[in-house]
Amino acid sequence: MDYKSWIFALNADKPRFLHTALRVRNIDAALRFYVDGLGLMLFDRIEIEHLRVTALFLGFEVGAGFLELVCYWDTDAPYTHRPGYNHAAIGVPNLNAILDKLEAMGVEITSRPSVSIQGAAPAAFVKDADGYALELVQIRNG
Amino acid sequence: MDYKSWIFALNADKPRFLHTALRVRNIDAALRFYVDGLGLMLFDRIEIEHLRVTALFLGFEVGAGFLELVCYWDTDAPYTHRPGYNHAAIGVPNLNAILDKLEAMGVEITSRPSVSIQGAAPAAFVKDADGYALELVQIRNG
Repeated sequence: MDYKSWIFALNADKPRFLHTALRVRNIDAALRFYVDGLGLMLFDRIEIEHLRVTALFLGFEVGAGFLELVCYWDTDAPYTHRPGYNHAAIGVPNLNAILDKLEAMGVEITSRPSVSIQGAAPAAFVKDADGYALELVQIRNG
Repeated sequence: MDYKSWIFALNADKPRFLHTALRVRNIDAALRFYVDGLGLMLFDRIEIEHLRVTALFLGFEVGAGFLELVCYWDTDAPYTHRPGYNHAAIGVPNLNAILDKLEAMGVEITSRPSVSIQGAAPAAFVKDADGYALELVQIRNG
């Protein structure tokens, strides 16, 4: 199901989160990180000719939160990452395995797994293909 | 259930989205927009003394995507909003009613409801208390 059809099919009585959008420069590099690296699926790719922009909708399953990656065809200016945009977070069952995989792909690990506050799950930070901070959180115990 | 306990309780075998984090300057102003204006609930407020930062976790229901608002106690630098961070999207059953309410609260409506591509649901854009773009999408038909 594509993203537009999913929105229409919701026909909802309560508000809900839909997606977070980030601008990316290179679609192939972004897909390599999010699809090949982190295992997200590409649910929809929309070429908006009159706005000269491509929008990609990625996620782990339909309706459980989308990441929208937006690529402006004619933009050359460098993207800012901080302050302002802080990070997005993805939970993974095996944090060390995914970090090993990403590192083998050349991804920069900016912070190794650690527990920032008492009682929290271990989390690491990596940079995506455009330099956005992404938090990876361990979501399986034992 | 607080955010940390929720993460531990997941004990998941599949990866999933957890949250998107934005930096905010004024917690009261941010809560006025997201809680009073948009109806999100505050699930957790964590004061991290040693990092001198407050983290707020908001959402419509536990597990259906969180927005994390991060307030650094000692930061004064203005936050950048574009390019880089693009927007987050929230679906609402009645787009015109929520826009009327937000406008009455003094929120800036940057784009009135329109359909950007054929087959898409009507969407508007507003600015939150820190100037971040937020897309509001109609998710009830008729």
